[in-house]
Amino acid sequence: MEKILVFGHKNPDTDSITSSIVMANFEKKLGHDAEACRLGNINKETEYVLKYLGVEAPRLIDSVEDGANVILVDHNSYEESIDNLDKVNILKVIDHHKIVLSTSYPLYFRAEPVGCTETVLYKMYKEYGFEIDKKIAGLMLSAIISDTLLLKSPTTTDEDKKAVEELAKISGLDPETYGLDMLKAGTDLSSFSIEEILNLDAKQVTLKDIKTVINQVNTASIEEVMKKKSELEEGMEKIIKEKDLDLFMLLITDIINSNSQVIALGKAAGIVEKSYGVKLEDNTALLKGVVSRKKQVIPILTENA
Amino acid sequence: MEKILVFGHKNPDTDSITSSIVMANFEKKLGHDAEACRLGNINKETEYVLKYLGVEAPRLIDSVEDGANVILVDHNSYEESIDNLDKVNILKVIDHHKIVLSTSYPLYFRAEPVGCTETVLYKMYKEYGFEIDKKIAGLMLSAIISDTLLLKSPTTTDEDKKAVEELAKISGLDPETYGLDMLKAGTDLSSFSIEEILNLDAKQVTLKDIKTVINQVNTASIEEVMKKKSELEEGMEKIIKEKDLDLFMLLITDIINSNSQVIALGKAAGIVEKSYGVKLEDNTALLKGVVSRKKQVIPILTENA
Repeated sequence: MEKILVFGHKNPDTDSITSSIVMANFEKKLGHDAEACRLGNINKETEYVLKYLGVEAPRLIDSVEDGANVILVDHNSYEESIDNLDKVNILKVIDHHKIVLSTSYPLYFRAEPVGCTETVLYKMYKEYGFEIDKKIAGLMLSAIISDTLLLKSPTTTDEDKKAVEELAKISGLDPETYGLDMLKAGTDLSSFSIEEILNLDAKQVTLKDIKTVINQVNTASIEEVMKKKSELEEGMEKIIKEKDLDLFMLLITDIINSNSQVIALGKAAGIVEKSYGVKLEDNTALLKGVVSRKKQVIPILTENA
Repeated sequence: MEKILVFGHKNPDTDSITSSIVMANFEKKLGHDAEACRLGNINKETEYVLKYLGVEAPRLIDSVEDGANVILVDHNSYEESIDNLDKVNILKVIDHHKIVLSTSYPLYFRAEPVGCTETVLYKMYKEYGFEIDKKIAGLMLSAIISDTLLLKSPTTTDEDKKAVEELAKISGLDPETYGLDMLKAGTDLSSFSIEEILNLDAKQVTLKDIKTVINQVNTASIEEVMKKKSELEEGMEKIIKEKDLDLFMLLITDIINSNSQVIALGKAAGIVEKSYGVKLEDNTALLKGVVSRKKQVIPILTENA
């Protein structure tokens, strides 16, 4: 069989990047020729992880040939993947999101309602009796900490906790100290332009028929980020026009206190008020206890769309 | 947690019925309160299986309450499931078909490109270290034989073969003799009206925008079934009108020689000719080597639709 390309979603986060590496490694153990790829730049958090563990970043690609063999990790939607996803041969999907993909053929599709794709991969390694070496364990651990904000996000399950416990032992990393350093590395926005900040972790979703981008930025200080509010809003308005969006939500998530400040623009911004029972003042409101886009934002907005 | 209802698709076949029993048993081993259900009558093949193994049929249901906890086996489509599937809480899906379902929330979704749902369940029992007792093994074995026509269908994978080998040992059943008796029991059409024959294993699918029903009837003699051709056609025309179909395909599959005689009616019948390079004469043609609706019919028709 031809080479298999393994990749996560556009605007890759730590889970997408590490899962592509870990899944490619899994396929190699099965005797397949697989290569980890990525559909976008490495963010600062992931950069910290790869540097710390001494692991090379996956190869950057922007397209694949029609008919290519691919494995998707950490996503199963057309919007977040390569443009010609409907023309390639999807062999497997490993994910932890809602089900969006549709295919005309059966494939290996495994999604579980856990905090992180790496938790599913961890289980698969165990099931197949494959060794999880120190680096692989470090990659898995980093992604779970990242996606669950140190096991504090409501997306966290017992399976994530159990995985973190064992992966900490194998990797020799302390989840608390290493994890907080890693998360903080991801909150350093100093070197980014406004445009870059607005694209760091932007997910494009269609809520019923409301074309939406939800961008999430982690921070240790909401105040610090809000100093740039007017510039951010200007950038958001520009993207709304370019992409013809109905809603742009910027979630500024305080990883220490587990709250998010939202800035919402676009003609459908009202659904944020409706969804959370808040009043947007100057386009912004504090969403107490909201840290998970997947669990506390997308389903709630979908319901109220 | 409330009781979990486990069921397969409408017009249940042996895989749908046995998988609901086997998956409910799996959930009980996880400590959950689960009940196997079915969305339609037991066919003759499945009747043979349940009687032979001394296993009770799942409870017949025609609807579930909004908000109910359900597990889907052997299907993941709205068309083949309960009417209010979008209003229930789908906890898990175990399947081996193409991906059709979409959800607004993450769940445990496991589909694999193998011949039978029971092969996936077999792997899950192994992964969890759950005992496969004699009856469960017999149910699994029966479904794999049924779906793969004794491992001869092109949907058959090495994993199905491996499962059959081990399940034969545990169940004490000989796949060849037991399997052929079971398949033959399923081909006995003597007690059925034409209308019943046309509903035995009818799958409603939409090929791009072509509203289609594909019904498959197994037989040990195509000639025998073709004696009823004009009555069958009359019945098919009636269903086309009732359901406003574009295409009704009746596949009469010779389980001994692995061919299918097709009768195709409806305004889109031409795509059968285009798909297989055959000429329909009096609405019928022999499709050599075609035995699998899933692998040799639905994807080919979809491509040519």
